[in-house]
Parts: sequence; C-alpha cells; structure tokens
Amino acid sequence: MRCQKCHQKVVIKISRANAKYCKACFIGYFEHQVRRAITKERMFSPEDRILVAVSGGKDSLALWQVLIQAGYQTAALHIDLGIERYSESSSEKVVQFAARHGQKVYTHRLKEAHQLGIVELSGELDRPPCSACGVIKRYQFNRFAMENGYTVVATGHNLDDEAARLLGNVLRWQNEYLLKQSPVLEKNEEGFVKKVKPLYRLSEYEVAAYSFLNGIDYVVEECPMSESSPMLVYKKALNLIEHQSPGTKQQFYLSFLDNQKKSPLPPSTMALHSCPACGQPTSSEVCGYCKIMSRLPGPAQKVGGPSLT
Amino acid sequence: MRCQKCHQKVVIKISRANAKYCKACFIGYFEHQVRRAITKERMFSPEDRILVAVSGGKDSLALWQVLIQAGYQTAALHIDLGIERYSESSSEKVVQFAARHGQKVYTHRLKEAHQLGIVELSGELDRPPCSACGVIKRYQFNRFAMENGYTVVATGHNLDDEAARLLGNVLRWQNEYLLKQSPVLEKNEEGFVKKVKPLYRLSEYEVAAYSFLNGIDYVVEECPMSESSPMLVYKKALNLIEHQSPGTKQQFYLSFLDNQKKSPLPPSTMALHSCPACGQPTSSEVCGYCKIMSRLPGPAQKVGGPSLT
Repeated sequence: MRCQKCHQKVVIKISRANAKYCKACFIGYFEHQVRRAITKERMFSPEDRILVAVSGGKDSLALWQVLIQAGYQTAALHIDLGIERYSESSSEKVVQFAARHGQKVYTHRLKEAHQLGIVELSGELDRPPCSACGVIKRYQFNRFAMENGYTVVATGHNLDDEAARLLGNVLRWQNEYLLKQSPVLEKNEEGFVKKVKPLYRLSEYEVAAYSFLNGIDYVVEECPMSESSPMLVYKKALNLIEHQSPGTKQQFYLSFLDNQKKSPLPPSTMALHSCPACGQPTSSEVCGYCKIMSRLPGPAQKVGGPSLT
Repeated sequence: MRCQKCHQKVVIKISRANAKYCKACFIGYFEHQVRRAITKERMFSPEDRILVAVSGGKDSLALWQVLIQAGYQTAALHIDLGIERYSESSSEKVVQFAARHGQKVYTHRLKEAHQLGIVELSGELDRPPCSACGVIKRYQFNRFAMENGYTVVATGHNLDDEAARLLGNVLRWQNEYLLKQSPVLEKNEEGFVKKVKPLYRLSEYEVAAYSFLNGIDYVVEECPMSESSPMLVYKKALNLIEHQSPGTKQQFYLSFLDNQKKSPLPPSTMALHSCPACGQPTSSEVCGYCKIMSRLPGPAQKVGGPSLT
C-alpha cells in the first residue's frame, strides 16, 4: 500500500480521514494539524512564553516536541503525584526529554509538599484520586504560570480526551462545564492565565504514532489510578461507536465547537473573586485547592511550590 | 432480601432508582410510571382511540397490556416484515395476544404489498434495512391512524431506546432530529397524527421483567436485521457507562427533556405540504415512502393497506 501523497510505503492508516501516509507525510500531516489549531484558534504567537503541562506521557511530550521544533519559547511544569514506580518513571522521562532538548522543566512533588502522594491524599479527603488530581494540577499550572510570567498554559489533551469529556458533560447536560469545553480558554482579569490544547484535532492513536515514529521516550503505562476513572469508560464507549462509524468522535467534538461559535450557550453567570486564603481566582467562598488543603491533617497542609530540576 | 414497600420476597432490584421490589410492588411501580407518563405529558384520555404499534416484542405487548388493563380504547397495527421465521413468530405472538385480550389487530404484510420482504426491499433500494423499515413503519402507522379515525399512535419505545436515539442525535448535533426527541409529538394540521411513547420512563430491563412476570408471550429473539444497526451500538455504549454509573441513561434523557421545556431549541423551519403522490404530509417534494416505492421494480410498487386478521 502506498502513501496517498508521495507513493512511499504506508506506515499508518487514519480511518476517520480515509487517509494513508508514509512516515514523513504522516509527520507532516500531524504537525500541520497542530499549526492549524494554533493559528485557527489564535492560541499563541512567538512572543508568548508558553508553560507546557507535562506528565511524561505521549501526549504532553509530543506537544512539547512540536512546540520546540516550531521555535516557540517553552518551559514545562511536571506534577510528581508520588505514585511509586509510575511517578518515578514519569518524572525520569520528563527530565530526560528536557535535557535532550535543552529545555527547562519545573517539578512540583506532592510528597515533598504534603508528605502524601495522590493516593494517600485522596484517601484522607475521601475523594476519587482523579478528582483531587484535577484540582491540584489545574491550580498549580495556573498559579505557577501567573507567578512566573508565562502567558499561556498548553496541555496535551487530544481529540479522544475532549470527545470523552464532552460526552461526560452532555450525559449530565452540565452547561457550566460545556461552556469550558473549548480548545482555548482566554485569560481573565481575575487571575486565570490563558489555556490552550493544540492537539485537540488529533486522535490518541495519531499522537501515539507520532511519538513512536519520532522516537519520543514516554511512559507507556497509564496512570494506575485512572482505571476506575469515568473518563476511561466514556472513551471505551466512544471507541465502540467509532469502530462502527469512523469519524464519529471528530464530528461530535468539532461540530460542537462549530455550533458554539454560531450560537453560543448562554455565558456563565458565576462571579469570580480572589480566594481569601491564597489569592487565586475562584467562584466559591474559598478556592477548591485551599478547600482540599484545609481538610488534610496539619503537616500535610503546607503548600510547596515547584522547584527547578 | 425484602421488598422496600411491603417486606415480601424481592424479585427485582433497580440500580438506577436504588430500589428493590416484590412481584406485586414492581408491577405497581411499573404501571404507576406508565400512568405518570400518560398524565404528566398529556398523552391521551379515555375518549381517545389509540392505535398501538405492535411488533410482537416485549415492549409493544407490555404497553398494549397496560393500556387494555387501564380501560383505554385500543386496537393494534402490526407490520409483517417478511423475514422468514422471525416475522412468522412475531405475527403469531401478536395475533395470540390480541385474541387472548379480545382486541383487534390489523396487519400490513410487506410480502403481500410488494412481493418483497424488508431484506429484499432494502437490497433493491441499496439502503440499510433498519432505515427502510423505519420509513415504512412511520408511514403506515400514521396513514392507517389518519384514515381510520385513531386519534393517537402509541409505540413501545422505552428509556433505553430513547437514550440511544438521543445519543445518536447528539453525536451528530442534529437539531432537526433533537426537536423530535420527545415522548409526545402533537398532531398537526398537515396530516400527522399525535404520537406518544408511554414507556419512556422505564428501562428495557424493567419492561422485560414486567412482561415476564405478567406471563406475556412475546418474541424473545431480536430482529435479525438489527445486529448491524447503529442504535444497537449506541445502546451497548450507554450500557457500558450505565454499568459504572447507574442512572446515567435516565439522567441523560430526562434532563434533556427538562432542558427542552425550560429553554427549547429553536423550532423547525421546515414547511410541510401534502405529498403529490399519496397525500401524506412531507417536507420534501415527494414523501420518503413514495420516494422509496418509486425506486422499486414495477410490480413491487403496489401499495397495499393493512387487513384485519
């Protein structure tokens, strides 16, 4: 089978686009999709200082690589969740990647900050690990970017992530969350930095293929906590449908975005103010992060910031 | 384990409602849900003449039984799809049920009308069988009701059917179809009879249990054509999610209906007129049914109406 662009040997078939590419043309296609996302959605320009949220997985490292190669100013923030072997391996991949590309990575270690990893921390809070993890990551990425002059936070969420999240929000018809379901969340004066998802047009499979073909050394193992995550079930459900009707995920998410542009949902009526405990923006009395922290036993409450590794 | 209402022995647990019932209390719960649907959604009153669309499966026969027991004026219309053993068995169940309850059933036989069953017919049309079947059924039910003075057509669609259909429509963001996603479609002057789905609050599992506990003799086998139907994949996908989060289907569909009441989608702009070939209402030049029929070979085009069995 031959590449549809250059007639070299095919390495990948993309059912949803009815396309087949050789290695070079696939990498070209992938990087074109990322550039298209960045320009179409006005994510950032070469003047921006971009903080890339990296976990050590394929998505965030593939994103970082594309941004470095395109000449953007980047540094990364990694959250070490303190899950034994998984977190050690993840941190190692991140540090090695940064060193290979001569880039800076900052690490926030939950065990250093709280003497607890995410498993023990969510146990203390009686909250699912993925939920506590989400609050901590969103908080640390935003706070670190604001305090250190980064103008944009970029995350590696791909099409599968966004479609699964949209499905979860649609199943509950949660308008407040649907409003935030965008590849770009603009900064606001109350203290939220701009957030972007340049891989939103690319499937999980395509990101994995890109990482593999580029020799990116990422942590292959999924986070062991994610096994019971609702997101994983939404992904399985969508994969069932995608298998029968290729292109469903893409149509589901991209049509949602198009409709949002044409006839947006009514804007949020939530008023933001500064959290009295930490100064970060929140719509509640105290922000979600400080609420979590206040429920931890005394010594675990200490808030530690990221350190340069 | 004891029934939550009367402490008799439990026969069924309903995870989504966190409920467990004995036989009598489950039947009471089931019939209460149907009555609630009928009154809450103003589906019909004892003065209405109701045409029940019966396939011979558990849903339509359970619906018919509840309506007969509640004293409504009913008759049924059955479409014999001409699928060998499956259709023979389905027709037999329908006729036996009608005889046992002293009710009238009319049958429209595709093989008598067109010399073709649904399999051969969809082959001639190069169209998936479920799609051709849907057009034919909707047409025949509406036309027969209009021509014979029935004021309402009632179908046995349950919560799983409606949630799966909603998922399919949401995955494509098809507003025209989302507008029709209601347990009641009012009659209109252009020639559509009122259509209602009194089982929309009850899951497939609950309808099966009700039919079993009432000794309703229904065709257990699924239509052999439905194996490749997208609806079946949507149901599988929703079942995956329901298994992890009981109540998801109910919340998905019932919240959609609530939102529709609070802030409806913009109304359809499609204008209806009479099909020049048959007089039935349509938004196209010729109605979907006549379009299908005109593509069949000459002798198959003949339109036969239902006959009293």
